[in-house]
Amino acid sequence: MTETNMAAEAARVAPRDELRHDDDPIVTDAATDVEVAVRLAAASGVDRSSRADRARWLTALADAIEAHRDELVELAGEETHLGAARLSGEVTRTATQLRFFAGVALEGSYVEATLDAPDASLTPPRADLRRILRPIGVVAVFAASNFPFAFSVLGNDTASALAAGCAVVVKAHPGHPRLSRRVAELGRAALAGAGAPASALALVDGFDAGTALVRHPLVSAVGFTGSTRGGRALFDLAAARPAPIPFYGELGSINPVVVTSAAAAADAAGIASGLAGSFTRDGGQYCTKPGLVFVPEGAGFERELATALTEAPSQALLTDGIAAAHDTGSAALVARDDVEFVFAGERIADASTPVIAAAPVVVATSAEAFVAAHEVFLEECFGPLTVLVRYADAASLAAALAVLEGSLTGTIQHAPGEDVAELTVALERVAGRVVFNGWPTGVAIAWAQHHGGSWPASTASVHSSVGATAIRRWLAPIAYQDAPASVLPPELADGNPLGIPRREDGVLISAPH
Amino acid sequence: MTETNMAAEAARVAPRDELRHDDDPIVTDAATDVEVAVRLAAASGVDRSSRADRARWLTALADAIEAHRDELVELAGEETHLGAARLSGEVTRTATQLRFFAGVALEGSYVEATLDAPDASLTPPRADLRRILRPIGVVAVFAASNFPFAFSVLGNDTASALAAGCAVVVKAHPGHPRLSRRVAELGRAALAGAGAPASALALVDGFDAGTALVRHPLVSAVGFTGSTRGGRALFDLAAARPAPIPFYGELGSINPVVVTSAAAAADAAGIASGLAGSFTRDGGQYCTKPGLVFVPEGAGFERELATALTEAPSQALLTDGIAAAHDTGSAALVARDDVEFVFAGERIADASTPVIAAAPVVVATSAEAFVAAHEVFLEECFGPLTVLVRYADAASLAAALAVLEGSLTGTIQHAPGEDVAELTVALERVAGRVVFNGWPTGVAIAWAQHHGGSWPASTASVHSSVGATAIRRWLAPIAYQDAPASVLPPELADGNPLGIPRREDGVLISAPH
Repeated sequence: MTETNMAAEAARVAPRDELRHDDDPIVTDAATDVEVAVRLAAASGVDRSSRADRARWLTALADAIEAHRDELVELAGEETHLGAARLSGEVTRTATQLRFFAGVALEGSYVEATLDAPDASLTPPRADLRRILRPIGVVAVFAASNFPFAFSVLGNDTASALAAGCAVVVKAHPGHPRLSRRVAELGRAALAGAGAPASALALVDGFDAGTALVRHPLVSAVGFTGSTRGGRALFDLAAARPAPIPFYGELGSINPVVVTSAAAAADAAGIASGLAGSFTRDGGQYCTKPGLVFVPEGAGFERELATALTEAPSQALLTDGIAAAHDTGSAALVARDDVEFVFAGERIADASTPVIAAAPVVVATSAEAFVAAHEVFLEECFGPLTVLVRYADAASLAAALAVLEGSLTGTIQHAPGEDVAELTVALERVAGRVVFNGWPTGVAIAWAQHHGGSWPASTASVHSSVGATAIRRWLAPIAYQDAPASVLPPELADGNPLGIPRREDGVLISAPH
Repeated sequence: MTETNMAAEAARVAPRDELRHDDDPIVTDAATDVEVAVRLAAASGVDRSSRADRARWLTALADAIEAHRDELVELAGEETHLGAARLSGEVTRTATQLRFFAGVALEGSYVEATLDAPDASLTPPRADLRRILRPIGVVAVFAASNFPFAFSVLGNDTASALAAGCAVVVKAHPGHPRLSRRVAELGRAALAGAGAPASALALVDGFDAGTALVRHPLVSAVGFTGSTRGGRALFDLAAARPAPIPFYGELGSINPVVVTSAAAAADAAGIASGLAGSFTRDGGQYCTKPGLVFVPEGAGFERELATALTEAPSQALLTDGIAAAHDTGSAALVARDDVEFVFAGERIADASTPVIAAAPVVVATSAEAFVAAHEVFLEECFGPLTVLVRYADAASLAAALAVLEGSLTGTIQHAPGEDVAELTVALERVAGRVVFNGWPTGVAIAWAQHHGGSWPASTASVHSSVGATAIRRWLAPIAYQDAPASVLPPELADGNPLGIPRREDGVLISAPH
C-alpha cells in the first residue's frame, strides 16, 4: 500500500470502537499501538480547529500541570533524582511555554497570511493569490530525559505542534515512564475538558515504537532532543522513508566558552564562580552545559575554579546509564597524556537512592593539544564535567576556535568595552546563540530565543524547539489562486476579519485595520 | 580532514592566484574545479555584504540579461527549441524575479529581526535577546532544462540565494551548455561592475561535478528542480553527508485538474480550450502542466478537447531524451487495456532542427481503473500528454482523488457559485497551490506565491523556489544574548536605524519608527 493510500484510508478512518485507545494514554505494543495512535491522531480533526480553540487547549494544559504540581514534582523526583525546587521551577517553565504558544497561536502572524491582488499587466499575469501556512499533519515527539516536563510529554515540541494545529504522538522517555504516563493522562483529560479531541495527544513507549513512529506514513514531522548518536539514527530513518519527512533534532552540544585575558584579569573569581554554577547545575545535565572553556594561560583561573567548586555537591544523575557514561568519559579524559587533572569533587553516596552520584570534574589541556585531538574533546560528556583549554595568545585561541563544530551556544566572557568582534565571528560560525558575560544554561522563553546551531546542534537549520518560531516546524504553505471566498481560511478573507498581521500587496500590515 | 577543519581552512583561504578560476565561469573537471569554485565562494565575503549591496547586485544582473536579450534568446532557441516569444518573455520573467528578490532584500522583514528586552521576573529570567536570520553559507543550485533562464543560472534559486547573502555555485544543465556559460559570463561581469565579489557566482558542469557539489563540506544547502528520480538521488546524497544539509527540491508533478459536472455542462468547450492551451504550451514542458484531468462521464468533454487540439502544433522538445521519453510514455499508456485513445496531433517534421517533434496526445481511463493502477498514472510524462479520468459521480471522483500524491498544483474548474468545499479539501491534501477556474501553468511572481506541495512536489515542506519566502531556504537563525552594540547586525540595533519591520517585545512593528 502506498503512503497516499494509507492517508486516504485514514481519512475514512474506521469507527472509534474498532481503533480503541481506551483511557490508557500509554501503549506499549509498538506494532499495533503506534498504528492506532497515529491513525486516531490523523483523524482527530485538530487540523481543522481554530487558533482560538487551540489557545484555549494549551491554556488548559498549563493549568492542569500547575494544578497537580506537588504530585508531579514528587513523581518526577523519584524517577529523575532532580531536586524539588528545580522540578517545581520546571513545572512553571512548562506551563509558561504552553501559555506562550497559546499567545503565538492567538497573535496569528505565524500563519504568514499573504494576499496579492490580481494584476494582468505583469509578466506573467498575476491572479488573486493568497498564501497561508497550514498544519503539516501528525507530529511525532521524542521526549528528552533531562527535562521531564519542559522537553517531555507536554514540552516545547508538543506545545508548538498543538499550537500549529497538529495532533501529537509522544514517544515517552524511558527515564521517567510513570511521570510520562501521568502527565499524558492529565493532558488528555485537560484537552477533553477544553473541548479538544482526546486523540490530539497520545503516548507510546519503547524503542520499537519510536522507530515505527518515524516510519509511519501518516507521521509528517519529528521533533527530537537528545544524543547525536540516537538523533542521527532517527534522522537517517526519516530521510530513508519513501516520502521523507522533516526531522527536527537538537543533538548533543559542547557549548564553548571563551574567557578573554582582560576578563580573567578583571574578575577571574567571579567568572570561575559563574562557570562552576553553570556546568554543575542539576548535575551538568543540560544541553546548554558549558563543556569547553577557553582560558588564558597562567591567569590563575584554574585555582579560582577549584575554589568555587569546593562546596559543589555531588548529584545523583538521571539514570545509571548517564552516570556510568559520565564516569567513563571523565576517566578517559583524565587518562590522556595531553590532559591535566584540575579538580574532582567528593562523591557523596546518597543512601536514599540506589543510583550512582556524580561529582564535578574539571580537566585541562592546551590549545594545541585540543586542535590535534579535537574529535575527542568535542565529544559531548553529559554530566558535571568541563574541559579547560589553555591558550597562549590570540592566534592560538583563533586556531582552536576554528575547529569547533556546531553547538547550541557560544559564550564570551569579556571585559567592559573590550573589542570582541573577531571572537563573535568565530562563535557565530558554529553557535545558534551567542552569550556575552552570561552563561548558556537557563534558556529564556521568548520570541527572540533560538535553541539551535550548525549540525549537529540542529539537524534542520531553520527553526528550533524554543522560541516562537518553533511553531513553524509544523507548518506547510499553501497558495489559493482565484479561490471563492467560501473555501478560504478566515485568516485570508477580504477585510481581515480576524485582525491578524498580514502582508497585502507586498506591504506588511502589523495591526488590525 | 573533518568538515569543520575544511571550513576553517577555507576561512584562511589560499591567495587568489593559487585558486585561480580565471575568467572562464564554467569549469568541467569536477574533482578540482568544484573544489576551487566552492572554496572561492566560501571566502567571497558575500555573507558580510549589506542588503542594499545585494539589491544593487541583483538589479545589475537583471539589467545585464535584458541588455543582452536578443543574443540570449537566439542562443537559447538553438539549444532548447523553444520559441523566441516564449524565450523573450522568460528573459523578462527572469529579470523581474531578480528585481523582485532585490525588493525582498531591501524591505528587510525576511531577516525576522526580533528583540526582547530583559526581564528578571520571568522563570527563567530573560536576558536581552535579539534574533536574526543570517546567510546559511554556500548554496549549490541545479539548473533545470525547461526554463533556460528563469530556473537556470540566474533563476529563482540563484536570485533568492544571492538576496539572502549566499554565494552560489550553479551546476549547469546539459540541455543548454552554451547559454549557461554565456549567462554566467554576463552575470559575473555584472556582479563585478556592481561591486560584488566575482566569486559570488560560479558555474560547474557535468554529473560528477553535481555529485561533488552536494557532498562538498563547504556547501550548506542545495536547490534543485527536476525529475523525481534525479532529485531523490541528490536528496539521498545530501542526507547521507557526515553533516547533512537541506535539499530543497521540487520534483516531478502531475497537477491534477477536476472539472465538475456543472462546469462541464456550462462550458465544456471553453474549459477544453483552456486545457488544450495549458497542457500543450511550449510542448507541455512545464512542471505545472496539467497531466491528469478528472472529467464527468458523457459530458462531451473529450470531443470538445479533440476539437480544440486540431490546430495544436507539434513542437520540438528540449532534448532528444525528453522527446523519446514522451513517445515511450505515451505509447505505453495507449497500449494499456484500461486506457482509451482520445487524440493524437499530427507530428510535423521540422526540417530546421534535427530533433524529434512531439504532438499533443490525450488518453482516457475510468476513475476505477485509475484507482487500481494509480502508480502508473501518477508517473509524470514530461511533454504534451494529458490523461483524462472519467468519473461517474461524486463518490467515484472522491475515491480517485484520495489516491493522489503530492503535486505542485491542483485545479478546480467549477460553475459560478458551485459548492467546491469538499473538492478543495481533497486537493489541499496534496497540492501546494489550488487554482480555481484557471490553469496552473504561468506561475506568477508574487509575495503570496507558492510553488511546492507534499513530497515529491517539495522535498522540504517549508518554502519553495518561487515567491518571497524562497529566500528563507538560504538562512539560519542566530540569537544574541546581552551582546555589546558593536557586534550586533545593524538590523538589530537599538532604535531600528535601518527602519525595517521588526518584532519588539512580542509586538510586530511593520513600519519604520
